[in-house]
Amino acid sequence: MKTKTGKVYIVGGGPGDPELITLKGIKALEKADCILYDFLSSPKLLDRAKPSCEKICVGKSDKLHLKEQGDINTLLYKKAREHKRVARLKGGDPFIFSRGSEEAAYLLRRGIDVEVIPGVTSAIAGPESFGIPLTKKNKIQSVGIVTGRKSDPGAAIDAPACDTLIYLMAVANIENVIKALRNSGRSDKTPCAFIEKATCDDSRIVRATLGTIAAEARRNKVKPPAVLIVGEVVSS
Amino acid sequence: MKTKTGKVYIVGGGPGDPELITLKGIKALEKADCILYDFLSSPKLLDRAKPSCEKICVGKSDKLHLKEQGDINTLLYKKAREHKRVARLKGGDPFIFSRGSEEAAYLLRRGIDVEVIPGVTSAIAGPESFGIPLTKKNKIQSVGIVTGRKSDPGAAIDAPACDTLIYLMAVANIENVIKALRNSGRSDKTPCAFIEKATCDDSRIVRATLGTIAAEARRNKVKPPAVLIVGEVVSS
Repeated sequence: MKTKTGKVYIVGGGPGDPELITLKGIKALEKADCILYDFLSSPKLLDRAKPSCEKICVGKSDKLHLKEQGDINTLLYKKAREHKRVARLKGGDPFIFSRGSEEAAYLLRRGIDVEVIPGVTSAIAGPESFGIPLTKKNKIQSVGIVTGRKSDPGAAIDAPACDTLIYLMAVANIENVIKALRNSGRSDKTPCAFIEKATCDDSRIVRATLGTIAAEARRNKVKPPAVLIVGEVVSS
Repeated sequence: MKTKTGKVYIVGGGPGDPELITLKGIKALEKADCILYDFLSSPKLLDRAKPSCEKICVGKSDKLHLKEQGDINTLLYKKAREHKRVARLKGGDPFIFSRGSEEAAYLLRRGIDVEVIPGVTSAIAGPESFGIPLTKKNKIQSVGIVTGRKSDPGAAIDAPACDTLIYLMAVANIENVIKALRNSGRSDKTPCAFIEKATCDDSRIVRATLGTIAAEARRNKVKPPAVLIVGEVVSS
């Protein structure tokens, strides 16, 4: 949709390593007059902005919401009316548990031109960076990416019958994730691992089993953002 | 693992658009002395190679195998012994139904240094490029990426209970994929879409339902590579 107002680029910043953004993504940041960014994108990516670029943190974390989603939407709209090129920089991919599609829909309804630039998700790059394959020919044939957090803290977590399961946002809610995995019929011996700060210089992996992962995560003080991977591939 | 031989970079070339490779991926291609590439990576990416770079097509498609996997492994090893930097360029992400992990394991066992560079998968970028969200807060909370092809043509296809399902390599085997989805309890009204040549200039989408997708794909002559997306998100 073309209008006289600016254009908003919803950019996937990738999993952590600032070199894992796409060429298209970095170009959008370099040309942006204004960047709205969150905590999950690498701070180093902001160094690519031009000197005149207005940079606004709209980060959300479990405890700290600098901006609520409604505020972010209206701010994006406001900035798109002020500037020619606005970049909305997100960690990972903008359409995987990231509300990028809500932001795009909000802007499109108001006549703002939007381009979504995909990013490498930590769900895939995290395990990969530790050499863990997500699929195996004729053996591991499905990969599920699932949220480990629901707005209603008591709500059951999904545990579909995928050969490999990857949970995002599972650290704080690990007990409910384990419950869901057990209810799905998975054994306590199922290999699991938490990958903290995927693809960053200080990334680390904590390997365990379904029966021991909660205790191991506590003992090793695993903190968000972390990816939980569940399935045989972890031990291969 | 460090050795005196060269290093192999297993590079995810992204979903199709040559600007959707990562910065790290493009650097690996620019510095490579030899690139082994397949049909799924954008041919334009090879233009980034230095003039002296040796470029070898090791593509596989449904009917044409220029090289079998064993040949590719041994060729990668041979080239890693000849050159300082070898890039193995793949479409999408190297660890999602792409045998990148097999190649990495083969090389590591022989003492070759390997670095895996993740890529944006068409499974995610394809729907995204047509504005289809993969998740929705508090509604669509799991995404499955599944192979639509098995080595045994009669083998049942997986259809796990994810809110959104994405099949890769489903064009030729669409009837078996539909059978699996029906057996999983999904209604014939479930929205579906094939996305052909995701993120390329000539990409297109064919929207239908589980009951009509096979006929629509035939009528529109959908060809591989194409991504099949199944779930409510398609109609949103």
